[in-house]
Formats: sequence, structure tokens, C-alpha cells
Amino acid sequence: MSHDAIGTYRDLLVKGDRGTLARAITLIESSAEAQQQQARELLESLPSVTDNGLRLGITGIPGVGKSTMIDALGLHLIGQGHRVAVLAVDPSSTRSGGSILGDKTRMDRLAVNDAAFIRPTATGGTLGGVARCTREAMLLCEAAGYDRVIIETVGVGQNELAVDRMTDINILLMIAGAGDELQGIKRGIMETADVVVLNKCDGPAKNACMNARTDLQHAIQLLPARANGRHPQVLMCSAVEGKGIPELAEHIEQLAALDKSNGAFTERRKSQQLDHLKSTVEQQLLEAFSRDERLLPFRSALEKSVMAGELSPSRAAEQLIARFRTTDGPPRG
Amino acid sequence: MSHDAIGTYRDLLVKGDRGTLARAITLIESSAEAQQQQARELLESLPSVTDNGLRLGITGIPGVGKSTMIDALGLHLIGQGHRVAVLAVDPSSTRSGGSILGDKTRMDRLAVNDAAFIRPTATGGTLGGVARCTREAMLLCEAAGYDRVIIETVGVGQNELAVDRMTDINILLMIAGAGDELQGIKRGIMETADVVVLNKCDGPAKNACMNARTDLQHAIQLLPARANGRHPQVLMCSAVEGKGIPELAEHIEQLAALDKSNGAFTERRKSQQLDHLKSTVEQQLLEAFSRDERLLPFRSALEKSVMAGELSPSRAAEQLIARFRTTDGPPRG
Repeated sequence: MSHDAIGTYRDLLVKGDRGTLARAITLIESSAEAQQQQARELLESLPSVTDNGLRLGITGIPGVGKSTMIDALGLHLIGQGHRVAVLAVDPSSTRSGGSILGDKTRMDRLAVNDAAFIRPTATGGTLGGVARCTREAMLLCEAAGYDRVIIETVGVGQNELAVDRMTDINILLMIAGAGDELQGIKRGIMETADVVVLNKCDGPAKNACMNARTDLQHAIQLLPARANGRHPQVLMCSAVEGKGIPELAEHIEQLAALDKSNGAFTERRKSQQLDHLKSTVEQQLLEAFSRDERLLPFRSALEKSVMAGELSPSRAAEQLIARFRTTDGPPRG
Repeated sequence: MSHDAIGTYRDLLVKGDRGTLARAITLIESSAEAQQQQARELLESLPSVTDNGLRLGITGIPGVGKSTMIDALGLHLIGQGHRVAVLAVDPSSTRSGGSILGDKTRMDRLAVNDAAFIRPTATGGTLGGVARCTREAMLLCEAAGYDRVIIETVGVGQNELAVDRMTDINILLMIAGAGDELQGIKRGIMETADVVVLNKCDGPAKNACMNARTDLQHAIQLLPARANGRHPQVLMCSAVEGKGIPELAEHIEQLAALDKSNGAFTERRKSQQLDHLKSTVEQQLLEAFSRDERLLPFRSALEKSVMAGELSPSRAAEQLIARFRTTDGPPRG
């Protein structure tokens, strides 16, 4: 793609063209060097977006109702005049993608709404790769005019920690009665939450929800506060019935306004920018290494020695890295 | 630590001294350069272990009964004359470690058995770091005479995929009735299983287990076979009551014997050796980069430009990497 083509791309993107946005995300997800160069050029050509945007993380274990919640919250935000992009991160399937049973999209209403854009991330990447792609996809969505970007993760691994490094406000979704243990909610994930929402607080479960809310709110006070000095509030809702959604949206706006007024919002974004630089460096370093064809013959000789048990993986790695550093810079110049 | 000290260390380790094994694992988990050099020297000094050892992976979501299962299976293996090491991988808490409620060790009987060694991995590392540490800890355990090493992961993230790259046989633990979705069992995790075990098949749940077993066995046939050409069998057990444990142990031994007779066992270990080389190279590369103090002034200048929005993270990364490659080799010579 030529420089001019990138310009056309950017213009269409900034106009909010959905097809262009989808293709641009595919471009940043590509691991081919040429595509990555184009992706970088595209990202750099984007106008800086004025900061009325808000980046939301939503996490919780499978079955807790994340999709239904995002559907309801997204529609509510659209009703308030926002445009909503949803990026769903699920890298747990590296071989063939998707859940073995089910996994149908449950964002029925959002999926057909013109003011919404939904995109699952490409699976199969490394954790660092997924994080970079998600962050850059978020920037593309913002450039395309989506002022509310929701990043959805399954809250049991390390992804939500990566997402914590790119969002303004994180929502941890839980259900009452499943028990902390069965929900796989670890302290580290709880610590990345800015709001905890008990979902499925409807019908006969309502009393259990009230009790769970009290218990959770007490447990949370024992955790260290977030960098902005706060502990998360525990809210209740029923995404299926749409109850508690306006209150949640209101609470999110209040938190954002508070963080903006005291500088915590800007601080968080700045520190995220540094995190992003760090992970970008790491990923590009690994790519530069695996892409350097001049290392290949040396590499396969070392691999044979390692397989034969003549050389330890650590020593082989040392030698490979020394060779990488003495070949003077990237082959393309 | 001197070269001689490493020798003493190794001798104590090979004699099976538990304190030395524990300290050796701490050594490999250290991120300090001096410790890493010592760890490498120690690993290389280890005698190659004769291959009657078996490496088992056990995964499943929280609450499925992994610890109880490992307690029962471990005791059974010890009863057969084996020595059992358990390495528990749980990197989900990066800030302060552990589950917010509970998470007590449930391997009561194994914990006090002289033929068993239990070790949780250090949390807080990168995925690659956790994988390297776990693999090296496994090698240390084998050198210390543990011929059955069990690696426990929470089956919802990418860890069990890393563990698949270091074990001979993987056991996926599930419970009937929780639903595939609530269990968070994704196709990718199912695809790394060599045996699927339905746990908690006791009392009134027994019928549900029988049905779930049939359903699962059918679903599994739809997945691609493992490299050895097999699909996993679905077994039933009750770890609490100890039922089905001897049958599981017997099944594992049969699978291992089969793989050994047709060469699949050796093939798998060889390909894992290559995977290990790859991840070792990647990790050492990142460490060499972050350890290179000559980059620091340049790095902080770039960070300022990125924070000020004058330079994109991608361009800054490019410049940093070029600088890393032209500083000629590691500072220590």
C-alpha cells in the first residue's frame, strides 16, 4: 500500500467508515512486516482525538453475563448520544479458535445498531501481541468516532491485567452465590477493578445479591486502594431485565469526572502510554529477532546441538543473542 | 556463589535434599543476573536423568477439585513406589498474590508425605517467565529423584498451553452439570488434553456424570486428534472418596507405555525441547535489553517524547532496538 493509499484509508476511517475500520484492525493484527509498517504509518497519521472519550474494561468469568451486560450498557450509552465500540479479547484458544460448545454472540441488539461496532480480537497471539493489537484497535475505534470503547476479557488470566493498562475504568462482573472460588476471582483481578457489579440480581436471587454485596464491599476494603486512592463500589444489576444499567452508566460518568477533576485520569493515561511503549519495544524486539534471516543457519545448528543434549537451551540462547546483536542492525537497512 | 559451591549444591540436590531443592527453585526464579548465571550453571551441572520419569499436567477451572485430585493421585503414585513433585502455576495475581478468599492448600496428605514435594510458582512474572521457571523447576525436581512431576494450572488462560509444551500427559479435570460455558473450557484447552476426567462423580451426581461423559466423549471426537493420533478418553472419578484414582493412574501408565513404544513420547519431548529453546531465547533477549544500562539515557529521552505525543510508541521502539543492536554485545564483555 502506498503512502497515498494510507492517506485515503485514514480519511475513510476518520469519517467513521466501518469497513475501513474493520480492515484497519486486520492490518494491525497482521504479523507480516510489510503490513506492520503500514499499520504504524496509519496509526501515526491519525489525528489526535479530543478527550471526551472513555475507555471501559469489562471482565468476569464465562457465564457471568458479560455479553448481555455489554449489550444493555452499550445500548444505554448510545441512547445518550455516544458511539460504542466493543473489543472482545479471548486468546485462550490458540489452535482453532472459539468455544467448544456455544460462544454465540449475545450482543443481539448492539450488533445491529449503527452506532455500535463489535470486534473479537484475533486469537492465537502471544499475550503481548494481544495487548498491543487491542490497544491499537482501540485507538483506531476512537479515530473512527467511537467515544466509548469497551474492552471485554474473560477474568481469569492475565488479559485483564493487560487491559487494566489501557482503560480508564474497569468493571468487574460477578454473580452472587457462585462463591468466590468457583468464580475464579483472584485478588489480582479484584485489584484492577474500579467498579464491581453483581449481575443477575433478579427474581429469587435478589436477597442473595444484597448479602453478597455487603460481603464483597467489606472484603474490598481490605484490599489496597487503586492509584487514585479509591476502593471500588459494589453495584447490583440485572442485565437481562435492564435493571441497574442507567445507575451503572451514571456511576461510571461520575468516576470519570472525579478522576478528570483531580488529575488522576491524565496520570493513568500517561502511565499507560509508558506501559504501551514498554510492551511495543518488547514485541518489536522479538519480531526483529525472529525475522532476521541471517541468523537461521546458526540457529538450526544450535537447535541440533540442543536436541542432541550437547548444549543447554540457556547457553544456546546466549550465543544466538550475541550473534543477533553483532549483526549490524535490521537487514532492510 | 563459587563454582565449588554450585558443585556442593548439585550433590545435595541429587541426593534428594528438600531444602536444597527449594532453594534451587528460588534461584531459578530470581531475575537478578548473578543468580541467573548460577542457576544456568547449576542446571547444566545436573546429571541427565534416566527416562522412567513422567511429567503430568493437571488443569481445570477453580472449584473443580484439582488439589483434592492431586492429593489422591499423588498418594496413589507414592503407594506404587514413586516420588511425586507438584508444581502449582498460578500467575493471575500480580500485585499481591493469592485468592481473595480461601485458596488454602488442599493437598493435606501429600503435604506431609516424605516422598512428596509441593511448590507453588512465584507469581507476578510474565507468561514466558512462568513457563521457563516451571520447566526448570521440573528438571530440578527430576534431578532430586522425583519421577512423577505434576504441574497444576488453572485451565482458563494461556498457562495450560505453556504447560502442554513441557508435559508428557495432560489431564483436564471437569465437573458434570456446571455446563461447558460456566467451566470456561475452551476448545484450545480441550485440545491440549490427553485424558479428560470428570470429578465429583459421587452421591446423587453420579447419573449426571454418566450423561456428561457420553456427551463429552462425542464432542471430543469432533476435535482434531493430538500429534500422537489419539483423542482423549473421558474417565470418571471422585477425588474426595478416592474412587477412580487407581483407574486413572493405570490409564496414564498405559498411555505413556503406548507413546513410548511407538516413538511419540520421544517426539513430544524433542519438540518440547525446541519450544523451550525458543522461549529461553525470547526471555533472555528481553532481559538483555532491559538490563543494558547504556540504553537508559536514550530511553528516558524517548519516553519523554512519547508522553508529549511527539513520537509514536512504535517509532520510539524502532529507535531503541536499533540502538540496542549497535551497542556491541552485552556490557559484561
